[in-house]
Amino acid sequence: MASGILMMIYDGIGDRPVKELRGRTPLEVAKTPNLDRMACEGINGLMDTIAPGIIPGSDTGHLALLGYDPFEVYTGRGPFEAAGIGIEVEPGDIAFRCNFSTLEKGVITDRRAGRIKEGTDELSRAVNGMDFEIEFMFEKGVEHRGVLIFKDQGLGSGVGDIDPHKEGVPYLESKPLSHDSKDARTARLLNDFTLKSIEVLSEHPVNISRMERGEKPANILLARGSGTVPYIRPLPERTGMKCAAIAGIPLVRGVCRMAGMDVIQVEGATGGMDTDIGAIYRRAKEAMKEYDFVLVNIKGCDISGHDGLAREKVEFIERLDSELKILEGLEQHYIAFTGDHSTPVPVKDHSGDPLPLTIVGPQVLRDDVTSYDERSCVRGGLSRLRGQDLLNVLMDLSGHGEKFGA
Amino acid sequence: MASGILMMIYDGIGDRPVKELRGRTPLEVAKTPNLDRMACEGINGLMDTIAPGIIPGSDTGHLALLGYDPFEVYTGRGPFEAAGIGIEVEPGDIAFRCNFSTLEKGVITDRRAGRIKEGTDELSRAVNGMDFEIEFMFEKGVEHRGVLIFKDQGLGSGVGDIDPHKEGVPYLESKPLSHDSKDARTARLLNDFTLKSIEVLSEHPVNISRMERGEKPANILLARGSGTVPYIRPLPERTGMKCAAIAGIPLVRGVCRMAGMDVIQVEGATGGMDTDIGAIYRRAKEAMKEYDFVLVNIKGCDISGHDGLAREKVEFIERLDSELKILEGLEQHYIAFTGDHSTPVPVKDHSGDPLPLTIVGPQVLRDDVTSYDERSCVRGGLSRLRGQDLLNVLMDLSGHGEKFGA
Repeated sequence: MASGILMMIYDGIGDRPVKELRGRTPLEVAKTPNLDRMACEGINGLMDTIAPGIIPGSDTGHLALLGYDPFEVYTGRGPFEAAGIGIEVEPGDIAFRCNFSTLEKGVITDRRAGRIKEGTDELSRAVNGMDFEIEFMFEKGVEHRGVLIFKDQGLGSGVGDIDPHKEGVPYLESKPLSHDSKDARTARLLNDFTLKSIEVLSEHPVNISRMERGEKPANILLARGSGTVPYIRPLPERTGMKCAAIAGIPLVRGVCRMAGMDVIQVEGATGGMDTDIGAIYRRAKEAMKEYDFVLVNIKGCDISGHDGLAREKVEFIERLDSELKILEGLEQHYIAFTGDHSTPVPVKDHSGDPLPLTIVGPQVLRDDVTSYDERSCVRGGLSRLRGQDLLNVLMDLSGHGEKFGA
Repeated sequence: MASGILMMIYDGIGDRPVKELRGRTPLEVAKTPNLDRMACEGINGLMDTIAPGIIPGSDTGHLALLGYDPFEVYTGRGPFEAAGIGIEVEPGDIAFRCNFSTLEKGVITDRRAGRIKEGTDELSRAVNGMDFEIEFMFEKGVEHRGVLIFKDQGLGSGVGDIDPHKEGVPYLESKPLSHDSKDARTARLLNDFTLKSIEVLSEHPVNISRMERGEKPANILLARGSGTVPYIRPLPERTGMKCAAIAGIPLVRGVCRMAGMDVIQVEGATGGMDTDIGAIYRRAKEAMKEYDFVLVNIKGCDISGHDGLAREKVEFIERLDSELKILEGLEQHYIAFTGDHSTPVPVKDHSGDPLPLTIVGPQVLRDDVTSYDERSCVRGGLSRLRGQDLLNVLMDLSGHGEKFGA
């Protein structure tokens, strides 16, 4: 039976010494008999997702884990957010993340327009019906969220946000971030678009009703995170593998979708601390029957890291571990246990600290590491790898690699 | 209180097994209780300044340590030497190192013109007054040394030296090192410049007086080390940090100055074996109050390495160590102890051997290395890094990093 690859990405799992844990990391403190058994049976090391000290985002981190160079393909979050909510974007398109927001007397009073839930379909249709200089597309996402695409030749993505990222201030004028005339053109178009959206939205019956009910009108679109949709050679074409991803958050799904992977939805996978870990593991195991490569992203460690909650992170890690017996029966496959970046409790944000990496599978050269954590893994047989190399290592082990040369 | 970064560069500290030291390295033999304590309290590893086996110069090594790719920005020593003596160079300028030398009957009889000390001001003025095809600038340095800048569009730096690098032979004709017409033009201009400098200098009253006193005339300028002044994105702009450097030698100061760092002069810092290590440490500690990032270069190990003197190298290392208590009180900062290259006693020159690297600071993940030396550090938690990644690692640790992506 052919070997497949399962890449288990525990989002934000890496950490630093935590005072509350007497200088140990959550992974060192957590009781993880199953992950430790993987370390014993596998080969271990450290992984810099992008490069040592470079702090990955979820988007750039997953691009690297899929073997792409984020410095080459990444210009902003917009395109991946767009792909994440299922919009068909094309290389060269410029994509922005957008919020329906509330503008009152020249000031942004609510960046989420009262977390508007109803009526955004009609508002989106009105926006898309606008007469505009170039082809564009606006697609609403969940609640106040949406994505704007400019489809035109000769546009740059180096422009500042319209979104002021806080309330009680006017919205911003987008400015080009370079002297490139392509960026200047995008900035001008985005400013025009913003003005027109205000006109169309302010008069819209949905907003008039909202105001009559004392609710915040969704009368401006605030754009941010401009990016050019990159040309990414699809993973199935690049690797010859059938590829799928399971991920709780749209941004990671967007990266995987743009890489040409099938995105599998799992009932109960919320992207939150309450996510159904067992359901994710079960679906991943099932997917291994059909796919050569499955990437799984589970978010919880990142959330507790961002919140600076050491005990919660320890508990989530213990839950990740306790359900691992579900993966029994995948012994002919190669499984990598790692993260996309560290989210240390003392930092409360992503960091560039390297991640523990354990690979199990039939032909790995076992080392003498006996614990899956940041400090133990460095003494393993993999030494220190880069994220961009991980998929190649797994393809090589599992027989999916191709000789380069003769 | 915010954390800063102190990069302590012990120039040439790395070594190989020395027969005289019964196969141990100077760092292994030296009694270094303070550095060993740093290793105990810190995270350790090996560092390849540029890449494994690549032998760094002081210029290329420091470029890498500041996060620049020397293969991209470095074409020759001239530009950095120019910046080191305080000349304002601009990207695209071609810079050469120059010696005032003595030409007698078509032969270079003294490459240093009797180590001329007086009269070089007048000679420089005469050279700068020369009528020449393009804009140029000659600036004298210490004694016989100087720097020549060609300021013109469309010049290449790929040209051979005028300096024959030995005495008793004629000076060389500069030849283009490629088929690029830009290099050909520079070579022609440099040859013209050399001829004109001979004319102007030979007749000069300063030289006539020297000859009357039986001293060697400074009657030719021998150029070498051609390089294009690169565009280097200034470190403060690139990193958002306020940056300073302390270095005993002009070349390293030149690299730091070109990177936009403030260069701090320390009374008693000579760049020699007699340098005042305590004064350097004290000034560095003081600078940490004002700057986010301070690089310190101390030269002594390199000198004893070049001279092949194992015992002197051991003693200098012990002096570096014994004064380290001066740095007490910097515990909230991150300090890296490493070098810019190895200068092994058996090699008597720079080598590409990796360097020991220890990082101390509040949030480092301690490992179990207990000695700061080439052989012990490899078992540390950092594994093996590149010099170009070091500053990113330190910025990430100290909270000066920025997330790449979202």
